[in-house]
Amino acid sequence: MPKLLIVSHDADEYVQWIREANLPHLEVVTDPAECDIVLGEPRRIRDMLPHLTRLKWIQSVYAGVEYLVEPGHRRDYILTNARGVFGELMTEYVFGYLLAFEKKIFERIHSQQVRRWDNTESGRLRGKTLGLLGVGSIGSHLAAAAKFFGMQVRGFTRASEDCSHVDAYFHPPDILKFASGLDYLVCVLPRTEGTNRLVDAALLDALPRHAVLINVGRGNAVDDSALVEALTQGKLAAAVLDVTDPEPLPPHHPFWATPNLYLTFHTSARSYPEDIVKIFAENYRLYLEGKPLKYQVDFEKGY
Amino acid sequence: MPKLLIVSHDADEYVQWIREANLPHLEVVTDPAECDIVLGEPRRIRDMLPHLTRLKWIQSVYAGVEYLVEPGHRRDYILTNARGVFGELMTEYVFGYLLAFEKKIFERIHSQQVRRWDNTESGRLRGKTLGLLGVGSIGSHLAAAAKFFGMQVRGFTRASEDCSHVDAYFHPPDILKFASGLDYLVCVLPRTEGTNRLVDAALLDALPRHAVLINVGRGNAVDDSALVEALTQGKLAAAVLDVTDPEPLPPHHPFWATPNLYLTFHTSARSYPEDIVKIFAENYRLYLEGKPLKYQVDFEKGY
Repeated sequence: MPKLLIVSHDADEYVQWIREANLPHLEVVTDPAECDIVLGEPRRIRDMLPHLTRLKWIQSVYAGVEYLVEPGHRRDYILTNARGVFGELMTEYVFGYLLAFEKKIFERIHSQQVRRWDNTESGRLRGKTLGLLGVGSIGSHLAAAAKFFGMQVRGFTRASEDCSHVDAYFHPPDILKFASGLDYLVCVLPRTEGTNRLVDAALLDALPRHAVLINVGRGNAVDDSALVEALTQGKLAAAVLDVTDPEPLPPHHPFWATPNLYLTFHTSARSYPEDIVKIFAENYRLYLEGKPLKYQVDFEKGY
Repeated sequence: MPKLLIVSHDADEYVQWIREANLPHLEVVTDPAECDIVLGEPRRIRDMLPHLTRLKWIQSVYAGVEYLVEPGHRRDYILTNARGVFGELMTEYVFGYLLAFEKKIFERIHSQQVRRWDNTESGRLRGKTLGLLGVGSIGSHLAAAAKFFGMQVRGFTRASEDCSHVDAYFHPPDILKFASGLDYLVCVLPRTEGTNRLVDAALLDALPRHAVLINVGRGNAVDDSALVEALTQGKLAAAVLDVTDPEPLPPHHPFWATPNLYLTFHTSARSYPEDIVKIFAENYRLYLEGKPLKYQVDFEKGY
């Protein structure tokens, strides 16, 4: 009989949704040595990897599984991550900021504070160009929303070109060509060796001065010093960082007070137990039948 | 030969787009006594109505034509307004604010200022309920976007029920039933006798305390004192007013400093000459052929 260990700060809620899902034969246990399946948060699970003596499958509740794929850890089990559920939330987040900039939401607040009737014209998304650094499940969702708002969409990927909402694909070494002329650059890259400091001084220089950078992937993709310099010198209009390296950000990190830099403290996509249990339930039925699971992570690639 | 007078602060841009449209036989003139067609802004046109001795048709560059339909003015011509072009812009505006509230954009800025790692959970639009006061061309566009984001949509109209994106319609006298349980109430009503102070104390009381009011229609629809009281007493989470009565707002009006009230100074939908000339060109061809024009305003109804 399959035994499930839940490793999450939302454990109670998970137990409830798992019960409602009525999964056949599944028993929820609390002893790491007893379980063959683990559902939970990668960082917490990593610390108990040596104790999971019967481990066969880990279902991550997040998309990012860098803590489990980092070198030195065991890889003798199937690792699946959560996909398809964060695209919608990150789309809400990204378009919230895109529209806030176009509609000058922050400037209007300031004008109201000084009692100035500020009818400066707003911008609009239609016709603007969005560049996606990474076009996986989340990037595709962003591209669909960009099309809904009448935007042009460019995608930068290693090789893949399978999202129909992307108007133009770019691949290495064309990253500066990709960046040139973008109004918005949104980074949705996972943390891997290959994504370290991809957003560097050269890339920031290639963006127009009115461009805005949004990072909802992982903090390692951004060269912090280069970003602070670009914003301080007005080479870039703004940056919105949901992710940083490290998290939380130390109290004296320059990001806290860099002009036109907006921090959102890794809140862009909450992992809702209700959503994750749907993924888990689908995979659990495949597991019972001995079939390949969905959303398997490649330990080498890291995603 | 049809003679066109352009009455707009964007006159130069209009002349250019009109030229590019290559409209047969059309001559652009500057003498009000000479023209049979006027393209422009209702308030400015109103002041020259007595001088338009050959007037046959006015094409407004705005949706709102209250200055031309107010009692006492001549009605011996065809009045058409601009439709179909503002829905998209107002949708960007409204969803900018909806997402700003869900994603706690203002709170995160404050947290950053005090260097607090504020990972309070954000909300999401999916599953939330949007109420539309008025479901015309603009309301329908808003409803479509609400569906894109997975929201429930209620529509309040006098009688019509022709937008497929509205899940539930309400009509007078069911306005309080309409308001009950809404997360967002968006007012897109034109200024008419029938819309005066529709958003009054009773309606505001019927909204949940976490609800947000957005007015992109006309300022007359809101009872100012009732709104100030509701916000001051925390009966309503926030209000975003693009329109007020009067505009500009006098320096000592309470709206400037009411808590959780956001003013945006009638910027939600700019009238782009490029968009308006498309409407004008289509109507001009109908005019030449002696056919009924599109988007004719009913002087009695006022829209």
